[in-house]
Amino acid sequence: MDATIITIGDEILIGQITDTNSAFIAKALNNIGIRIKEIRSVSDDRNRIISTLNDVLKPDNLVLTTGGLGPTSDDITKKVLAGYTGAQCMVVSEVQLAIIEEITSRRKMPMSALNRAQAEVPDTCEALLNRLGTAPGLWFEYNGAVLVSLPGVPFEMQALMREEVLPRLQQRFQLPPIYHRTLMTFGLPESMLAECIAPWEKALPPYLKLAYLPNPLTGVKLRLSAYEVQQANVAEECDRQVRRLRRIIGDVLYGEEPDTLEQVVGRLLLEKGATLSLAESCTGGAIASLITSVPGSSAYFKGAVVAYDNAVKTGLLGVTEETLQTHGAVSLPVVEQMAVGVRKALKSDYAIATSGVAGPSGGTPEKPVGTVCFAVASPSGVHTERLSFAADRTRNVVRASANALNLLRISLLKNS
Amino acid sequence: MDATIITIGDEILIGQITDTNSAFIAKALNNIGIRIKEIRSVSDDRNRIISTLNDVLKPDNLVLTTGGLGPTSDDITKKVLAGYTGAQCMVVSEVQLAIIEEITSRRKMPMSALNRAQAEVPDTCEALLNRLGTAPGLWFEYNGAVLVSLPGVPFEMQALMREEVLPRLQQRFQLPPIYHRTLMTFGLPESMLAECIAPWEKALPPYLKLAYLPNPLTGVKLRLSAYEVQQANVAEECDRQVRRLRRIIGDVLYGEEPDTLEQVVGRLLLEKGATLSLAESCTGGAIASLITSVPGSSAYFKGAVVAYDNAVKTGLLGVTEETLQTHGAVSLPVVEQMAVGVRKALKSDYAIATSGVAGPSGGTPEKPVGTVCFAVASPSGVHTERLSFAADRTRNVVRASANALNLLRISLLKNS
Repeated sequence: MDATIITIGDEILIGQITDTNSAFIAKALNNIGIRIKEIRSVSDDRNRIISTLNDVLKPDNLVLTTGGLGPTSDDITKKVLAGYTGAQCMVVSEVQLAIIEEITSRRKMPMSALNRAQAEVPDTCEALLNRLGTAPGLWFEYNGAVLVSLPGVPFEMQALMREEVLPRLQQRFQLPPIYHRTLMTFGLPESMLAECIAPWEKALPPYLKLAYLPNPLTGVKLRLSAYEVQQANVAEECDRQVRRLRRIIGDVLYGEEPDTLEQVVGRLLLEKGATLSLAESCTGGAIASLITSVPGSSAYFKGAVVAYDNAVKTGLLGVTEETLQTHGAVSLPVVEQMAVGVRKALKSDYAIATSGVAGPSGGTPEKPVGTVCFAVASPSGVHTERLSFAADRTRNVVRASANALNLLRISLLKNS
Repeated sequence: MDATIITIGDEILIGQITDTNSAFIAKALNNIGIRIKEIRSVSDDRNRIISTLNDVLKPDNLVLTTGGLGPTSDDITKKVLAGYTGAQCMVVSEVQLAIIEEITSRRKMPMSALNRAQAEVPDTCEALLNRLGTAPGLWFEYNGAVLVSLPGVPFEMQALMREEVLPRLQQRFQLPPIYHRTLMTFGLPESMLAECIAPWEKALPPYLKLAYLPNPLTGVKLRLSAYEVQQANVAEECDRQVRRLRRIIGDVLYGEEPDTLEQVVGRLLLEKGATLSLAESCTGGAIASLITSVPGSSAYFKGAVVAYDNAVKTGLLGVTEETLQTHGAVSLPVVEQMAVGVRKALKSDYAIATSGVAGPSGGTPEKPVGTVCFAVASPSGVHTERLSFAADRTRNVVRASANALNLLRISLLKNS
């Protein structure tokens, strides 16, 4: 079963907003066994919408549109679809009208003709109740195809998908199973990982497709997909393949989507009943931001010292002037003292420290831009490491933060 | 001049990633006078890519693709475009090869055959140098159209657009003038700002179009656009309009794109020769991340204490147990002590402190999720403020960080 998503709206084509609706819809449809063949974004233009529908609307197909259902004159989707499907007249959805009345009275606004018109739908479709907004969804059965039109406001569209569209699609179509499993890895760049697991990849059963999705923050994701295969068997086969993969790459495999490094280290810390503190120089608070993005992180996160100025390194963290003079701020001895110092000052079990040259300036021949020193202090000692990145400032900070979390993860695994 | 964007990748069609590349490209092309007719997302599938190209590639048109240029077997864009444009052989881009060698040696990896193959491009195109990654961009002149293929990794694609694609497009096509000016405001919600500047908006010359672009981090942007009008005159008229606007909204107007709040406060601190430190609780390092994202911020940023645990608030920042007990961690007296404490401990001229309920848990009837207390300590005293947001955790942290920077900005302006 194939589907096409059409997002309608000038704001997408001028780059004013990022289209997040397509990803939500695609994921939701995939989960119930519908594959997206294509996503198209077109402007609020009658001819463009019609020619796109002519292109993609085929018997037994599903086409989902978002956008252009608002009350203002630039919103034309409903009118265009009425004409396209040969509607004779517009019909008022009384339930939707009641919701519109409730919304306007809650906002203490008068009920305008524009508001009332929002409840009207073409007589060629069924209205899908929008509890969170004024524009109902539209469900057309047209030439053997299903055409669904949803509002572009993300939270309204999402509720309509969950409450109306997905249940109807599961009733309307015989849907084959689709199975996805996404494995999270960190520590091997894409090409090295690919070489390392090539024999494993070759030995995968032919119905399991593998895709590599590299990301500087999460590491390389490995996605296994199976189409039109019995779910239970696939799940079992995937379990087996994951075990095989772990034998090859070990702790490089850190979880499965939606796991993140910050969640995994949080979980490991919780399991141990251990606490964490940070001493950040070049990462400037980015690691603390990641750690605290996890709800409930206050259970294991004590806090951080962002020591941008060397005076903060000596004053709050106990880095000695001598070490700074001898080795420079970007050095293994300094990050070691930072990690030990913050662990002591904030009374935590574990601590990470970073110091590096984020760029664009500050590089030297021995310590070029992208050089970052890391230290992880744990109850069993301090591990230090120096890595080299070379992208721009933002990216160096992202990569340094991810690598710091990964070093902590490895340390937590070793200490168990 | 019309263009089509094609994003290639299964991960978009299964909803695993949100396509942010299209919005970036659309905006960049719009800025130089190229309109996007359509955006299409298709899978890593030979036939789909070819039929899409057949659809959209017309003489005198521009087609931009992203994705599918990676080294692994699921990346097929380069091969498909080679076939499509009738390439006879692959040619090694020596400059790209040198960059690949540099990247692999920096990462202390052996140079693999996969790495080396990344430097090869079809003989029907020109290689566009990718300084930040291994996959070069591809520039084809084909049947009177221009077809550009870029890697899908956002920062690589962005650099290629800026450094290679945009300058070449401006050379290659006769582009009509488009003039954009984007004014940055912070402190008034969109609807209030709109009411406040309605008379100004009405008095704008008809060729100047105004758009409101609200954003939780940067505030509401006001974009003035003029199409096909003499640039010099428009610039002058815009200057005049900006002066008029400033008379109405004063310091709510904080700059023009690409200014950000963190750059503006950085500039103000530099002008004064003043320094800054932070004491972050609920923002968890997010303000420090923003401040340090500005190159050169080490000139005025001393550092931060992320005081997640109350023991850090008392131990490092000198918040008294009594104040914590009497008022709670989320209170004006506590953030005042935090700001004064970090200013003293890190010996800075200015300091910001935050404490709040980021959510999803931790809310109470008096201090619901989204409650945030702020303090700005300056040489002339401490200003405190309590604000209420109500979105989810991520969004609360973003809004709190932006408001903290804005309070600092106002304090810096007052102290001059």
